[in-house]
Amino acid sequence: MGYFRPEIEALRGYVPGEQPDSCEIIKLNTNENPYPASSRVAQAVREVAECGDDNARGMNLQRYPSAMAEPFRRRASVLLGVPSDWIMCGNGSDDILTIVTRAMVGRGQMLRLPYPSYILYKTLAAIQGARSEEIHFQEDWTLGDDFCQAGDGLRLVFLPNPNSPSGTVIPPRRILELARRLPCPLLLDEAYADFAQGNCLDLVGQCEKIMVLRTLSKSYALAGLRFGFIVAQPQMIEQLAKVKDSYNCDALSIAAATAAIGDQDWLAENRTKILATRGRLIEGMRELGFSVLDSQANFAWCTRSEQPLEPIFEELRRRKILVRYMDYTAWGEGLRITVGTDEQIDRCLGQLRAML
Amino acid sequence: MGYFRPEIEALRGYVPGEQPDSCEIIKLNTNENPYPASSRVAQAVREVAECGDDNARGMNLQRYPSAMAEPFRRRASVLLGVPSDWIMCGNGSDDILTIVTRAMVGRGQMLRLPYPSYILYKTLAAIQGARSEEIHFQEDWTLGDDFCQAGDGLRLVFLPNPNSPSGTVIPPRRILELARRLPCPLLLDEAYADFAQGNCLDLVGQCEKIMVLRTLSKSYALAGLRFGFIVAQPQMIEQLAKVKDSYNCDALSIAAATAAIGDQDWLAENRTKILATRGRLIEGMRELGFSVLDSQANFAWCTRSEQPLEPIFEELRRRKILVRYMDYTAWGEGLRITVGTDEQIDRCLGQLRAML
Repeated sequence: MGYFRPEIEALRGYVPGEQPDSCEIIKLNTNENPYPASSRVAQAVREVAECGDDNARGMNLQRYPSAMAEPFRRRASVLLGVPSDWIMCGNGSDDILTIVTRAMVGRGQMLRLPYPSYILYKTLAAIQGARSEEIHFQEDWTLGDDFCQAGDGLRLVFLPNPNSPSGTVIPPRRILELARRLPCPLLLDEAYADFAQGNCLDLVGQCEKIMVLRTLSKSYALAGLRFGFIVAQPQMIEQLAKVKDSYNCDALSIAAATAAIGDQDWLAENRTKILATRGRLIEGMRELGFSVLDSQANFAWCTRSEQPLEPIFEELRRRKILVRYMDYTAWGEGLRITVGTDEQIDRCLGQLRAML
Repeated sequence: MGYFRPEIEALRGYVPGEQPDSCEIIKLNTNENPYPASSRVAQAVREVAECGDDNARGMNLQRYPSAMAEPFRRRASVLLGVPSDWIMCGNGSDDILTIVTRAMVGRGQMLRLPYPSYILYKTLAAIQGARSEEIHFQEDWTLGDDFCQAGDGLRLVFLPNPNSPSGTVIPPRRILELARRLPCPLLLDEAYADFAQGNCLDLVGQCEKIMVLRTLSKSYALAGLRFGFIVAQPQMIEQLAKVKDSYNCDALSIAAATAAIGDQDWLAENRTKILATRGRLIEGMRELGFSVLDSQANFAWCTRSEQPLEPIFEELRRRKILVRYMDYTAWGEGLRITVGTDEQIDRCLGQLRAML
């Protein structure tokens, strides 16, 4: 047809993890939380949806929502200890990854990311007509100095921390060192940080190049809500806001997300459960002969040198257990297994035990 | 800082219509529907938010939503009489305008739009580093042949139909003629089409260059929900889908939007009320000495040659009635007044009568 930009026609497109229709399948493939969100979420949603003619609260669905998701910004500001103009919300953290890439990376320029990590980043660069450069993690999942060296047209660096599929973390001190040496901004994708021992939020104030991205999809059990936010210095937020759609977060999501982060007891309790089950999962997989990295996320990366993993993945799938099989060129294959409920993980381990 | 693309730093950013916090203000400035949405919307939202652990329906908030908003596509397909793979949903129609621009218009290329119309289009071109070309409407709000001529780097044409601020419509036969002559796709932004006598949906099957964009913000009273969709031939949808965020519509919006379009009785009744009030508004403004175009949208464009309109806008604002004042270079100024309830319009007309 020739109606599309050549970069788009050439693109394969990012393929998200499989979402089976069947409810018989135990779904351990896309790092969703196995528990329902805080009950305050449903309450908040109901209030917005049902307030009908009552304009007093200005929240009803016939009106445009707050362009900057102010109710969320105000609550997150208190919770995180940063001013609210350091926060910008998005329609999922994917929306913010898109915005940051569009704001910073022009055609022919370069986006850097570690390898192996989140595959979407490369797609975002490709849509911009930009190049992407993958810097390999070292054997022990640390990053060498090549990650912060200058590069031709380098404009932006993405770093998931904790990383997927490894579940490993680069410590804050090293992150700050990398950011200071880099000639461009460093976006830390902290999608899994609530399951980790620490995070890099404090670094945002120390270096304007550091931006921290969070999502409510994983630790708040709200993948279906599409809500994420970025924390960066206000002069960065000001530019990013120009690129976002005017009303990128809807009234229901804003209310739901605000309620969710308001329930820190729920988060703490959920985290405790997930971390306990993660321990069982890792231990169980190791007993079955897998090599499993210590994970600071809500999944475990399991490899196995003595036999190919794709048949194991397929057989698990036949037994109604869906995990993520990944095969990284020049790095090898593995199963990334999401931390489900204890019962789900026991079922998964039991099936593996029967198969192997 | 130099971290952003020069196009972004130079951008003023699209400024959406004012959203006052006060509930005392009668808000007739952003073409929202004055009536609450169908009660089926709240019902649908409640069901998703409260289904908690019940994975049976696969709709709960802890899971990722349907990437292509399938439940909505299926229902819209029946309603509109087009196959579901001719439909792509977005996080508001702004999301789709962004996607289409990113998919088709590269740096240095050109986007065409009529003038005066929706200001956002130019911002979208600017973010791409692209040029935009404004073709002026003729005196009678028709479009001359210059609208469909070839142009240097021309890749995409946006045409709101009905147009804002005029509320006027280009008839389908003329649209088809323009599209056939154009060397590139023509996106018809039918945000207001449910208030018009006809629409151009049937043209999509006749010409692959024609794409029709709809939103639930206006006629379904769901501006707060952020839900829009585009109808285009499947080979077009396939390319556009590569550019959208994987899960660009959330589970609550998908359920709410599906419920909303399922209630066509609500739409018909709402439309009848809005059209009756539109008649009163136009008649009333004409009696007050304004020139008012016949409108096929949920607003009226009111001009007045004998006195400047900005002071009238300001005085109305002081009297707690917010309309939209617009001043188009080389075209002139006007008040764009949204059709509210009869009571709101009577208040607006009464205040104007007292002022003039």
